[in-house]
Formats: sequence, structure tokens, C-alpha cells
Amino acid sequence: MTDALTLFASDNYAGAHPDVLEAVVGANEGWACAYGDDPWTDRLRGRLRELLGDVEVFPVFNGTGGNVTALSAVLRAHEAVICPETAHINVDECGAPERVAGAKLIDVATADGKLTPELVRPHLTGFGDQHHVQARVVSISQSTELGTVYTPDEIGALARQAHDAGLLLHVDGARLVNAAVSLGSGLREITADCGVDVLTLGGTKSGLLGAEAVVFFRPELAAGYLYARKQGTQLASKMRYVSAQLLCLFEDGLWREIAGHANAMARRLGAAAAGVPGVRLAYPVEANAVFAALPAAAIERLRQRYRFYVWDEGAGVVRFMCSWQTTPEDVDELARSLRDAAAA
Amino acid sequence: MTDALTLFASDNYAGAHPDVLEAVVGANEGWACAYGDDPWTDRLRGRLRELLGDVEVFPVFNGTGGNVTALSAVLRAHEAVICPETAHINVDECGAPERVAGAKLIDVATADGKLTPELVRPHLTGFGDQHHVQARVVSISQSTELGTVYTPDEIGALARQAHDAGLLLHVDGARLVNAAVSLGSGLREITADCGVDVLTLGGTKSGLLGAEAVVFFRPELAAGYLYARKQGTQLASKMRYVSAQLLCLFEDGLWREIAGHANAMARRLGAAAAGVPGVRLAYPVEANAVFAALPAAAIERLRQRYRFYVWDEGAGVVRFMCSWQTTPEDVDELARSLRDAAAA
Amino acid sequence: MTDALTLFASDNYAGAHPDVLEAVVGANEGWACAYGDDPWTDRLRGRLRELLGDVEVFPVFNGTGGNVTALSAVLRAHEAVICPETAHINVDECGAPERVAGAKLIDVATADGKLTPELVRPHLTGFGDQHHVQARVVSISQSTELGTVYTPDEIGALARQAHDAGLLLHVDGARLVNAAVSLGSGLREITADCGVDVLTLGGTKSGLLGAEAVVFFRPELAAGYLYARKQGTQLASKMRYVSAQLLCLFEDGLWREIAGHANAMARRLGAAAAGVPGVRLAYPVEANAVFAALPAAAIERLRQRYRFYVWDEGAGVVRFMCSWQTTPEDVDELARSLRDAAAA
Amino acid sequence: MTDALTLFASDNYAGAHPDVLEAVVGANEGWACAYGDDPWTDRLRGRLRELLGDVEVFPVFNGTGGNVTALSAVLRAHEAVICPETAHINVDECGAPERVAGAKLIDVATADGKLTPELVRPHLTGFGDQHHVQARVVSISQSTELGTVYTPDEIGALARQAHDAGLLLHVDGARLVNAAVSLGSGLREITADCGVDVLTLGGTKSGLLGAEAVVFFRPELAAGYLYARKQGTQLASKMRYVSAQLLCLFEDGLWREIAGHANAMARRLGAAAAGVPGVRLAYPVEANAVFAALPAAAIERLRQRYRFYVWDEGAGVVRFMCSWQTTPEDVDELARSLRDAAAA
Repeated sequence: MTDALTLFASDNYAGAHPDVLEAVVGANEGWACAYGDDPWTDRLRGRLRELLGDVEVFPVFNGTGGNVTALSAVLRAHEAVICPETAHINVDECGAPERVAGAKLIDVATADGKLTPELVRPHLTGFGDQHHVQARVVSISQSTELGTVYTPDEIGALARQAHDAGLLLHVDGARLVNAAVSLGSGLREITADCGVDVLTLGGTKSGLLGAEAVVFFRPELAAGYLYARKQGTQLASKMRYVSAQLLCLFEDGLWREIAGHANAMARRLGAAAAGVPGVRLAYPVEANAVFAALPAAAIERLRQRYRFYVWDEGAGVVRFMCSWQTTPEDVDELARSLRDAAAA
Repeated sequence: MTDALTLFASDNYAGAHPDVLEAVVGANEGWACAYGDDPWTDRLRGRLRELLGDVEVFPVFNGTGGNVTALSAVLRAHEAVICPETAHINVDECGAPERVAGAKLIDVATADGKLTPELVRPHLTGFGDQHHVQARVVSISQSTELGTVYTPDEIGALARQAHDAGLLLHVDGARLVNAAVSLGSGLREITADCGVDVLTLGGTKSGLLGAEAVVFFRPELAAGYLYARKQGTQLASKMRYVSAQLLCLFEDGLWREIAGHANAMARRLGAAAAGVPGVRLAYPVEANAVFAALPAAAIERLRQRYRFYVWDEGAGVVRFMCSWQTTPEDVDELARSLRDAAAA
Repeated sequence: MTDALTLFASDNYAGAHPDVLEAVVGANEGWACAYGDDPWTDRLRGRLRELLGDVEVFPVFNGTGGNVTALSAVLRAHEAVICPETAHINVDECGAPERVAGAKLIDVATADGKLTPELVRPHLTGFGDQHHVQARVVSISQSTELGTVYTPDEIGALARQAHDAGLLLHVDGARLVNAAVSLGSGLREITADCGVDVLTLGGTKSGLLGAEAVVFFRPELAAGYLYARKQGTQLASKMRYVSAQLLCLFEDGLWREIAGHANAMARRLGAAAAGVPGVRLAYPVEANAVFAALPAAAIERLRQRYRFYVWDEGAGVVRFMCSWQTTPEDVDELARSLRDAAAA
Repeated sequence: MTDALTLFASDNYAGAHPDVLEAVVGANEGWACAYGDDPWTDRLRGRLRELLGDVEVFPVFNGTGGNVTALSAVLRAHEAVICPETAHINVDECGAPERVAGAKLIDVATADGKLTPELVRPHLTGFGDQHHVQARVVSISQSTELGTVYTPDEIGALARQAHDAGLLLHVDGARLVNAAVSLGSGLREITADCGVDVLTLGGTKSGLLGAEAVVFFRPELAAGYLYARKQGTQLASKMRYVSAQLLCLFEDGLWREIAGHANAMARRLGAAAAGVPGVRLAYPVEANAVFAALPAAAIERLRQRYRFYVWDEGAGVVRFMCSWQTTPEDVDELARSLRDAAAA
């Protein structure tokens, strides 16, 4: 902990939404069967089926755990995952996919964190060749690690390409809600309706204490998931407290409210930053992240007030994340600091 | 969920203690750095150092995760773990130690869930032989999966043997607090003072929503643990909500109160059960578990009212767990049902 | 290397049979496609189909590699293998099954190295329980590590039990030929005809330089094996030299000759040893191994002349292996030394 | 097998050199201790110490096995390997490094198959960050998969960079001898003298039946290798037949003769190919590989006579490999066919 303000460092620096805490407290009614055989998990399953279609739903503790166990369940030992170079599974999970799921990741350089059929195509090779891992999953993040958002058409094209080649499409949806709000769509329109097969549905970054869910859009893919979750250390005994959080987020419109606010704050910040001389937006602001390129000296000055990630040291690109807890005043103050830092 | 009463099925069927919920709510103050760099985790670390000595402390989500990542951090690929056949890591973690830590488990049959130096000795072989895994860790559960408790002398003897052979002693302490209360000792007297090297410190089964901690008693053993935790999918982003639970449990005497109550309820149940004609205690009741052997027909009848685990189908041994939430009335009612079932 | 005579230490201390060397030299004709697409591998496949039925055949380098890749190909991450405590995969492969195949081994104590349906039954539990690994393979060694041999009826009973429970039967056949000769049967009668699903067919211990084969009795089980073999580092580029060895062994009757001789030498040694006062055969001599219990002092004296494995320090059980290279004179000399050592 | 000529498809399509076969036959003298405790392995160790310095030497079956077990021995679970995108470990080992060694590979795009300090530098990041794998090894191939050769200065620069950052330098030397001959240097000058830490020393592609060796240039790095080799299924029981091959290759000048011939044939082919209108060398011919770019139609025509790998479908790049068995007449005939194919 430094004295620097941490509020734009990451959306997981934010607290839990009061409604979520209330839901957790509400789940504390006497005994409940452990490991998911409880009313809160049942209701969560039902609710997500309303939102997403005929899905199988499995609450887990965190995003890395969700991603790794989801991949583990659908991959055989010699199968591989095609993903953007910037993917969380590739750069932020400390080798968990390789170690826990035994999966080789085939990472692809992208301009903006988004795969395209053109980028994927060269990696759809070596099928049937015993020397090569066999590509089995295309994995994308929605919204991406660079704050950009896939349109339903873009996801659909990736899904069709994947399916035509016998692959599955996995979405790391740590910030799926931000993408949905950004697109003005429901959750189903950007998953089931586009052909997504497996989803890691985020919650922690959207005002929960810590809860995500692995969602299979084709029940047969979930066949071994109960074991993959347990073996991947992601089976909560008192699951009701995990499920209650997700239920609160998705039961009514809380997810829209939270994501909508975070996105709006990012847009406000993006607009302000774009207007600062010497500052350039590195990527379009489409969800709750703002990536800005600034001079090294400005970064240095800004660091004295704020804690944030420098994404690309060389290019001077830094990241600011907005959350449900970010206020317009917070944004305006950061914008002022940014202006000062860039001007000095 | 059935209509059967679930209150004796497991101590993780119980809810969270109200103080714990309050502590979680109290941790919801604005922003906090993620991944453990927060005041609650700091205070937990400080508090556990008061209780346990000069330890390194790492909060995790659950017991399986704690065990597996702890082992992963101290084992090289060719090293193995000696444990009781009944160990949670051996029978209840769906192969996570083998898969995630890559560890071979050398399981040893025991009379009562407890290893002894005599039982361990035959497995301290093959050192330096390239064909054999190299034993590196002795792992015990305190209290054991059979509700028995190691005395400090027993742990000390295992630790000395382990250390003399160049091994480490790991304790799966999912119910360490129950053992401490049973022995009338502090936590340090049954860990650091006995030579324990690594501990998975339980909380979930003692009234938390879901929180455990991996504790290293020799700092050098913790060298790679940060990576092992992340790679093992056990790194919480909003760690404050995990740490706050553990802090609540260990800050004052809540752990003693909770474990003391659960143990007392088990003793009450054990005493009642032992007095039922046709019922026999399978193991001494030393913590919060009661294992009773009853006729198959009695088990069948009891099942209509209660949900519980049949531990050994052949021998007719069933398990009842008590928790902080179990009341004397609950116990007495179960005792009556047991009497009825055995009499019919 | 010591001055002690090594000829009874193991059947892999013997050299290669001259016919085998000739076959290897004969395979050295100009270019041949690598990785198995060569005439020798083709002929081996054809020949083993004559001997074993409609099988898929994959040459590999060694027994550990064969066992591990065979298991890897048929197991999903949460599946487990039931095997005798004495199995090579359990005690002599340095954790390769756990590490490379990610498999948990459920090891079972036996009287003579042989599983029976009674011994397997208690481990056919936990199906569908997410906490437990799911038993998927029963693995036996034929002949066993203790020199005993399963009858076709015994294998058939294990296969039926396995199949009824949805499991596969794997045979570690490092010394399958010794078992076949011992039983006076062909190879098919003790594999395909008994319901064996997967076989690691040994050769190295029967006069080859180094060659084994993984054999699938149901083609669908071999689906992923090409990848499992490559990933398990067992794909030979110049496979012709591996296949030519196996072809030589199985093309005509060489395997019968080699195994028959080794078995006969073991019987001769067993008979002699049984007649030595103070020496007792620990297991029936059914293949090419002799396990004898002798006084510690006798072991000490014998060690000065011979190199051999002490199997059980406490019980004073030592192992002598016979091979195609062992002569009656060798046996008689060892018998004399044994007599002297026991008498002194 | 097709009717197409296979002699340029790969250097492992060639047979074994007669001297090597003779050496294998010569190793067939009665009994020898298994697992490397034999005179041939001893002599190999001694000979490689003369050639390479104070090294630890471990024979293995094949190149993938050598690479994977070498990496396994020096990596902890959270450590990673930086390698060229084209590296054999990255594209031709079916995920063995990820699966068996649990290693994440950080692959780097290169112009010619060669890493440089500039290419490595951006990946020397994230040290101490628990979210990131920790780079521990830089792995290069010498000669490279594209037939290019690192100079001693280039290797030295990579080694210094690696060591300064606390990493090791591993060389996949499947064709190290071709590089040495190409550079007119000894083996030590391009390994030990440049700071190489671990080497997979090839033999199979240089006229052996199948034999490679893992070599550690700092004895302390070899500490766990015996276990890594066994666990990685690469421990030969009758190791003498593996060691005898390597001994034959390196005892006198056979390696120079074999590599020199193969390189000369490649130069001859390269020169001829460069003179064919419409054909362009894709990479400099520095070892025993020729990569040529030709029109798609020419490739099609050439395929009717020859079997070879198309390296890059889009760019029309094909690979021809020369070996100890390739004759000038073979080369000239291929050159004529190439000319015909390009002209038609």
C-alpha cells in the first residue's frame, strides 16, 4: 500500500456492491447442503438459463480458476488453445493453463486484443499430424484485455470458423457484462446466439466479493466438468455464498447498472484524456478500460498521485480501469491530474 | 436437497458465524489493493505471527486448494508425499495433488487415521534410486478424517523422523482448531513447537463463508509459493474478503468458542450413541466427528430422517459431524432417532 | 560395476540375442520413411495381428514409456488406475504415470503380486462423486513383478469385472512371453481371448536391445495414441530399428525359445534353492524369476559373489532373474554358492 | 510409403552408418549392468568430457525426450522457456514440454530461426510478479530448424544476457555437429566456451539408429536429472546399446565426417537450386538443410518424384535435408528434377 490513489488501478480494487453484501448475508440461513446442492445455486442456474438459454452452470472462485477448469474439461492432453497474445490465460495466469490443464497455448499477435478469422486461419494446421498439438479451442476475451469489444458478428464469424474446423469457441468473460452494455445487447445475443460453446462468466470485477461461473452452452461439453472443477481446486464447499453473489448480480438488472456505470466512467475519462495535449488513446474506449499513451515524464509525475499499470513501457501506454465505485468526480480529478502531468 | 435433515452431514453444511459476516461487511471500505496488498491481509499475517511464530501466511479459497498449492511449492517433480490412506488429499481431492502438484502420494493404511513413525518407516526407502519417487513430505491431518487427534508428542515424533530423513512435515489443518481445543492447547503448541513445516490452516469448517490459509513455518520454504498459489488458481483478487474472515476467527477467541462448541456437541452425541444398544463408536470422539457402527437396517431407517455419510458400507460405519451451529437439542434429537432406529 | 557377477541381477542385464542383432543390421537398407511409415513396422503390425487378432500396434522405446503413454491415451484427467501395490507403474517408474499421464494410481496390497476381483471390488466405488477420482483402468502385470502368472481364467474374471463396471483392463506385459510359455499357451489366449483391452508388450527383457510395443485390442481405444506417444516422448524417428527387433522376436518362434529357456533356468534354480536348508521360496516359480528367503548372513555372503536385488530387507527375500543368456552351469554355480552361503 | 523418392525428406530417413552398427554389435558382450552402469556409457562420458569439458552426460532415446527431460530437470513449475517460434520444442513435440515438463514456452518470432538478445529482451520481464511465469531458460537450436547456424559470438551474447538475468541457456543440438563443421570449430567452442548451460546432443540425425544425450555444463544443474530422465520415460535399461552408438560417433572423427558430408551435399544442392530460374533460397544454406521457394506448380510437379516437407504453403517454401547417405549423384538428380519442375 502506498499513499498513491488506487481507485483506477483495477476494477478489482473496488469493493463489493452493497446489494451483493446483503445477498451474502441473506444466504446465511442455517444449514445448506454443500458443494452446490443448495437453493441459491439452484436459483442461479435457473436464472442464467433464462438469460443464456439451455446452459450448464458451475460457480467457481475466480477467473483464472474458471478459465483453467473450463479448458481442462474440454481438452484432451494433446489438444491446444488458440488465443490472442494479450489473453489473460496467456500472460496473467502464471502458466496455470499449461500446468493444470496441460494445455499448449498458441498465442497470436493482434492489433487490438481481438482475434479475427484471418488471424486464426494460419494456426488451423497440423490436424492429424502426430508431431503437432491439435488445436481444439479458440479462446477470446470479451471485453478484451485492451478494453475493446467484439461485435456479435465478429464473434459469430469466429464461432463458425471454429466449428467448421472442429474446434470450440471459449469466451473469457471476466468483463462480459461490460461488453454487453457497450453493445446495448443482452448476454445471450453475444454468447449463445453467436455460437459460443463455453464461457467463463465474470462477477468479481463487477461488484462481487469473489465469484465467477463456468457456463457450457452445449450440455455434452460439461460431461467431465464436475471433476475438472474439483481437481482444479475450484469447488466451493459452502457454495451458497458464491452463488448468492452471482444471483444478486444477474437476478435483476444489477449487472447492467454496474457495467453501465463503469463503462460511462471510462467513456468520460477517455473523452477527457483524448483532449489532453500530448495524450493519445491507444485503443478505442469500448468498455470500462482506458488505455492512454503519454510521455514518460508525464507517467512519472502521474505515478506520484495514482497507482496504475504501465501496459507498454516502450510506447508509454498506461491503463486506467473504471468500476461501479468510480464517480464522475474521481474521473474529473484524474483528468485534471493527467492534464497537469502532461503539461509540466 | 431432500427432506432429510442435513445438520449432521458435514461441518461445511453449517452457515457462517454472524461475527464473520459482520467482519466481511466491515471489509467493504472503498478501494483496496488487490491480491493481498491490503490492510486485512496485513493484519491477518500479523495476528497469525502472534499465534504461530515467525510464519509466512497466504490466504486461499479452500482446503483442497491450500493443500495442493502448499505441496506444489515444496515438491520437485520427482518427489512424493507419504500420507494416511484416509487422507483428504488421497481420497477427497479428485486427484488434484497428482494433477496440479504432479505429486505421487504414498498412502499408508492406519488403524485410526493417524500416522506413526512405525507406519512411516517402511516408506522411507529408495532414496537416491532413480527408479523411485523420492519421499519429501509426510502429510497428516489434524484432527484426522476419522475424528481423532494427534498429541503434540505424536506430532513431534513424526516431525523428528521426517527431518532426520530430510523430509518436511505438512499438516492438513482443515480442523486444526478442533484439535487444539480438544488438547487444551494453543495453535503454536501443536504446530511450530512440534516441528511442523507447512500447514493448511482451516477456517471454512469453523464458521467462515470460505477461507483457509497456507502457513510456512520456515520462510525459505515459502520461496516459490506466490507462484504456486497463482498457478494453482488460488489467488483471490479481492483478498480482503478472504482475509477478513480468517482475521475474525483468529483475532480474538472466536476459534476457541466455535471449535469448543462443536467438540462439546460431538462428545455429547458420542456419549449418547455409545449408550444405544447395538451401536458402537468406531473411533474415539476427540474432535467434532462421531463415527458409529450400526446395523444396516438401522442405517436405513435413520436415513429417512437424516442425511449423513456412510463411511464404510461393509462395517456399517456412519459419520456425524458437529459444528458451531449444532445445538444440544439437535444432538438429543439425533440420539433419540438413533435409539429408535437401532431398536426397531 | 563391481566384481560381483551380475548375471542374475535382472533379465535386462543380458545382452541381445544374435538373431535380433542380425535383424537390426538387416533393417539398415538405405532410406526408409521415419516415424513408423516403413516396411518393418508394417510387417510387425501384420505379424502381431496374426498372433493377437485385430489389434493396433505402436512400437515404443521402453516399458515405462509404453505403460505411461498407453494409460495417457485412455485416461481423462480425473480418471484413475487400480493396480497391485507391487506394480512396476506404482514403484518403479519414478512417478511417471502421475506426472506424464496425470493419473492417480489406486494401489492394492496383494499376497503374490496378483489382483483378484475380490481385491479390486472395494475400489470400484465413488463413481459419479465429484470428490473422487473415477476408476477407469485395472492394470495387472503378466507375469507379475513377483514371478507369478495369471491363468487365462483369472485374467478373464478381472476383465469381466472391469468391463461390467465400465473400466478397461491393461496388461503390463514386460514379460508376457514368459507367462505364455509358462501356461503353454499362445499370446492371444492370455490377452484378446480373456478380454484384455490394452497391452504393453515387452521385448527388451527377452533378448532385444530395447523395444516394446503398445497394443490396443479395440481400435477405438487407440484414437489418441499417436499423440500420446509423441507427447510422452516415445516416438522413434528411425522406427525401423525398433520394429525390426520386435519382428525378429515374434516372426517365428524366437519368443517361445527365449522365454522357454529363461523359465526353465528359473525352474532349475528354484528347485535347487528349495532344496537348500535354510532357504525358502517366497513365491511359486512360474516364470523367469526366483524369489528366495534366506538368512541375513547368507545374503551378505552371497553378495560377495553375486549382484542381485534384495526385495524385502525385513523378510530376507532376494530376487534372481533368469534370461535367454543364463546357462544351466550358471544356475548350478549359483545354487552351489547359495548352499555354501546358507551353510556357513 | 509412396513411390516418391524419400531421400531428401529428412535426415532421419537415412539409415545407420555401418560403423555404428558395428559398434552396436560390438557392445553385445554377455552381461552388463543396466541403466547406465556399463563400460560403454562410462567411456562415452569420458570421451564427451574430453570434447566438452567438465560435463555430466546422460544418454537418452530421442531428441524430444532429451529436450523435455533436460528442461524438466532445471525448471520449477512456474518457470518458463523463451524460444524461437520455429523451435522444435514449440512446434514439433506435440506439447510434450507443456505436458511433461509443465513448462510454458514463450515463443518469439524470428527472421531466420535465430534468437538475438534484441529479440529476447522484451520477454525478460515480469520477474517477481506472481501473475507471470518466471523466465528461466533461453532455448536455441544449433543448427536451427531453418538450416542456419549461430556463430560462437552470437551464442556467447545470448548466454551472457541469459546469465545476467538469472537464466540458463539451453541448446537443442539435434544437429550440433552440422553447426560445428559449418563453423570449422570443435564442439566445445560452440557450447562450453560460449556459456551454454544445458545441451541436447543429437546423434540420430547423424547416422545413428537412435541415440542422443543430455549434457549439463554445470554439474549442479544435473542434480535432479536422473529422476527427470526416468520420470520422462527416457531411461534405457540396456543403455550400452545407446551409449555405444554415441561413442562410435564421437570417439574419433566420425561426427566430422558425417556432418561434413551432409553439409557439403546441402551446399551443392543449394548452389544448384539458386541457379534455377524461378527458384530462390529462402535461408542461407549453413548446415545440411536447403530451404527453397518455388512456384506452387513446380512444387506439385516435384512431388510426383520426391517426398519432402512444404514448410510454408503460402510462400511456397520447401525443405530438402541432406544426410551422410546422400550422394552427389542424388543431389544432381534432384537439381535436374527441380530445374525441370520449375521450367515446365
